[in-house]
Amino acid sequence: MLSKNKAKFIRSLQLKKQREDQGCFVVEGKKSVLELLNSQFKIRIVVCTESFLENRDGALFAQQIGLRPYFPEVILCNPLELESISSLKTNQTVLAVAEIKTQTIPKKVKGLTLVLDHINDPGNLGTILRVADWFGIETVVASLGTTDFYNPKVLQASMGSFCRVQVYYTDLEKYLSTVKIPIYAASAKGESAHHFTFERDCCLILGNESHGISESLLPYVKRTVTIPPYGKAESLNVATAAAILCDNYRRLAEFGTVTYR
Amino acid sequence: MLSKNKAKFIRSLQLKKQREDQGCFVVEGKKSVLELLNSQFKIRIVVCTESFLENRDGALFAQQIGLRPYFPEVILCNPLELESISSLKTNQTVLAVAEIKTQTIPKKVKGLTLVLDHINDPGNLGTILRVADWFGIETVVASLGTTDFYNPKVLQASMGSFCRVQVYYTDLEKYLSTVKIPIYAASAKGESAHHFTFERDCCLILGNESHGISESLLPYVKRTVTIPPYGKAESLNVATAAAILCDNYRRLAEFGTVTYR
Repeated sequence: MLSKNKAKFIRSLQLKKQREDQGCFVVEGKKSVLELLNSQFKIRIVVCTESFLENRDGALFAQQIGLRPYFPEVILCNPLELESISSLKTNQTVLAVAEIKTQTIPKKVKGLTLVLDHINDPGNLGTILRVADWFGIETVVASLGTTDFYNPKVLQASMGSFCRVQVYYTDLEKYLSTVKIPIYAASAKGESAHHFTFERDCCLILGNESHGISESLLPYVKRTVTIPPYGKAESLNVATAAAILCDNYRRLAEFGTVTYR
Repeated sequence: MLSKNKAKFIRSLQLKKQREDQGCFVVEGKKSVLELLNSQFKIRIVVCTESFLENRDGALFAQQIGLRPYFPEVILCNPLELESISSLKTNQTVLAVAEIKTQTIPKKVKGLTLVLDHINDPGNLGTILRVADWFGIETVVASLGTTDFYNPKVLQASMGSFCRVQVYYTDLEKYLSTVKIPIYAASAKGESAHHFTFERDCCLILGNESHGISESLLPYVKRTVTIPPYGKAESLNVATAAAILCDNYRRLAEFGTVTYR
């Protein structure tokens, strides 16, 4: 049974401050929770409906819980109760509470590192995580002003990729000043991505949806790269741009035109 | 002043059936309305707040209205009234009612035609329009089950590109059976996009977000193309995939590896 206190606790985790105070976050819906069960995250509570446990996904889910080194608390409730604690419009299946990981930026990163400068929209951040996961990019460094990784909308939009891609929040000026690999930035007026040569280990800065890249970061940027336009749209969505640039990076590496030091 | 009847009429256009019956649709927010004023759409009504008209955008907007061959009805109202007829959470600027264009698919299309097979999500359709506009693709053909072009969320996500990219709704089986150019399809198990050769004039089918491409369309598909994965994400968002494939098409054309008949 779901107690009033526990329901209140779970609902409170919709807020960033509460997540930080409690060191916990909420994962909603069967796809995301199944990915969570397969991940290194420590899971404290699972809340699900009986009908979910009885179907095929529920069986898979129970199996996954069984494979974990420890059992989370499992609470059964009815669909209405579940929806009352979920941020999703409809969630009749499952929700979990897991522990926030404390992170320190790895000193040496191989391959492409995405650097996010004040990405505001949770849907964009989630989609960028999904894109990074698709292209095998494990490290994303974000400015302190970037939307919170553990925001339910970010996790939802990432389609489970939040389990595989790390986001490290830090002061970007300080971070970039210590970076030894070339720093590129996506910009409206850079070199064409179709003629760009990436070094294998590099950083790519993606700027804020409205304001682009902060001026304070420009001194660290070695070259800027642009997705060549053929029509009249003013801009591309930042997650779309990230996807195209990651594909160009991978494509270049495949054709041997990424340079190695 | 905004009459009750007019407010009711504008609100009713949130529904597809009403839009079809009335032959009208609503465009919301200053960016979209400014794009609309620059387009071929016939505009019937403009509703805006006084404070909007008094600022810089308002002046530009009044100038644009002046350049049109005829004047739409312009109604001033207060911010609360405007928000009550808008689907946006906050819209304190402007909204317009324009006439739906009747369309017939052009017989001969040059370049890449995107073919959408049951794209359900309005945000995805809008983003695909923005992508098509960026890559200079003018023609999008959509299945009858694809979400409505004139849905306010589609127009919003397109960031004004709905003014430049046409979507033709039709029975895709019938359409594809008449097409004389090669038909490709995006698929999870096709040839790598990095090694694909597009013909200059071609169709590219993008499938439904959950179910992919309808089986009934497969007989028309010449080759399938895949964005090579390097990580563990199960899939990419359909609009993201569209963007990467359009970029690959353009890139190939630029490097002379698109084949010409």
